Amino acid sequence: MSRLVAHKRVTRVRVADDRVFVAERSDALSVEEPLEIRVGGAPLTITMRTPGHDVELAAGFLVSEGVITAASHFRGAIHCGGPGLGAPPSAGSRPNLIIGSRLADATLGSAADDGNTYNVLDVTLAPGVPLPDTDLSRNFYTTSSCGLCGKASIEAVHTVSAFDVAADPAVVTIDDLLALPGRLREQQRMFDQTGGVHAAALFDVATGELLVLREDVGRHNAVDKVIGWGVLHDRLPLSGTVLQVSGRASFELAQKAAMAGIPILSAVSAPSSLAVELAASAGMTLVGFVRDERLNVYAGAQRVAGATA
Amino acid sequence: MSRLVAHKRVTRVRVADDRVFVAERSDALSVEEPLEIRVGGAPLTITMRTPGHDVELAAGFLVSEGVITAASHFRGAIHCGGPGLGAPPSAGSRPNLIIGSRLADATLGSAADDGNTYNVLDVTLAPGVPLPDTDLSRNFYTTSSCGLCGKASIEAVHTVSAFDVAADPAVVTIDDLLALPGRLREQQRMFDQTGGVHAAALFDVATGELLVLREDVGRHNAVDKVIGWGVLHDRLPLSGTVLQVSGRASFELAQKAAMAGIPILSAVSAPSSLAVELAASAGMTLVGFVRDERLNVYAGAQRVAGATA
Repeated sequence: MSRLVAHKRVTRVRVADDRVFVAERSDALSVEEPLEIRVGGAPLTITMRTPGHDVELAAGFLVSEGVITAASHFRGAIHCGGPGLGAPPSAGSRPNLIIGSRLADATLGSAADDGNTYNVLDVTLAPGVPLPDTDLSRNFYTTSSCGLCGKASIEAVHTVSAFDVAADPAVVTIDDLLALPGRLREQQRMFDQTGGVHAAALFDVATGELLVLREDVGRHNAVDKVIGWGVLHDRLPLSGTVLQVSGRASFELAQKAAMAGIPILSAVSAPSSLAVELAASAGMTLVGFVRDERLNVYAGAQRVAGATA
Repeated sequence: MSRLVAHKRVTRVRVADDRVFVAERSDALSVEEPLEIRVGGAPLTITMRTPGHDVELAAGFLVSEGVITAASHFRGAIHCGGPGLGAPPSAGSRPNLIIGSRLADATLGSAADDGNTYNVLDVTLAPGVPLPDTDLSRNFYTTSSCGLCGKASIEAVHTVSAFDVAADPAVVTIDDLLALPGRLREQQRMFDQTGGVHAAALFDVATGELLVLREDVGRHNAVDKVIGWGVLHDRLPLSGTVLQVSGRASFELAQKAAMAGIPILSAVSAPSSLAVELAASAGMTLVGFVRDERLNVYAGAQRVAGATA
């Protein structure tokens, strides 16, 4: 039983020719469940996510937070009390170590099957990798006195980021960029069923290949899953790629791309002011409003062939 | 100078008849800046928001977290180092106490005017109102052992919520519901300029009146600002109202509505599974996919006149 889509009774109402038509039927909804990410047993964060690819989600979140940059930093992850991939639930429900991205689908079992909710994931970092600071007051932003501002947020990304996306020589064609939203949409299995889920996908600029696509009720989660796929396959920095997202480009999405070394971020909808400022400052290319044979380049136009005068 | 919209140079690319047209021009973007909310001087949270109505945002966030339910619980708020409403910056930049929602627009000054970023807001609660626990491990969700699940999240809302939305006798007509997305869109000043901002608005069911509308780059922030308007006007519980949101209905939006005593949540797009479960469990009405003379009622159909058999 999949945990990606849930079926609920819904009352469908339609008005036509001044008449109201009411029908009861079953409707497919995107599943949203909390995931608590722990590191070394200590709670780090809780996110409301669509179950599935939880190990990628945790790994990508740790990249975004500047904790890991290589597969070797990530020793493994277990669902609290959960059985390992393919292993039957043991009597004592002893946790098995789950290594790497092959296990991304280990979360797809239903909670009802064995009583485990699969909503608590404990990550083990490699020896020598510092545990993240779980103090709420720690932040990438400057919190002292009144200095909190977008500029400080951007500088914090530069300080923490391990990769220099500005040096990435990738160049993408306008035609390729214009095709990405359609290719993203084609592959969105959940969206077809529910109409209510975000997607993020990584494309190779040189070959045009779709490397990975993930869907989630949360925009940030979809991107974290993509980046988690990248780090677990030890492909960071994700040089020569475009990250295509289904919605808007916020600061946090641009931050995640920068932290993973992705040189080009493309959004179907609008970017925010701070996303543009971060992209410009980091030397990243930011594209938005990619639709109807049009697109806007907000930063790094040198990577879009034919977009400079 | 407004801080809601920023203008950036953008490279506009358009393809027509196999020719590429490139133009440089100025584009309006939604402003995104960090806001640190402090309570009694202690940092509580940081959110990436569109500046403006920061006092409402903080007040609404505190309602959502179960900290306050009445205007009397909220003694005031100041922007760190900021001048009071209308007051010129004093030499020593002594904070002035800002009371209530009249001051919502005090954040609209530009940071450049007086060097203050207006991105740190310190809330003072009334004597006797417990300070929120700022420990990260505190959460509405059950984090012990492996019990974290959507059901526990829903039960936590019931435990904390001060209001019983199930008892709200409000009934809305299908025609009124179908008209709300259009009325929301009409009033979205920022969206018209930027095409990239979320909105939330509160409508009175009995009179049809639009009570308040707020826009923000963050969906949750727009809802927090609306609820903050409500609590600062001492109108909680927000009985007899519909909360119309421009996007999807997630668990967190349904949670915020429940915490503020809003009986009807209506979304232009899809709800998540957990939003539907919370609405059903709380006795709230949840409507989704309100578009093109159609809508779906996912919970509480008794409040939609003509939608029950």
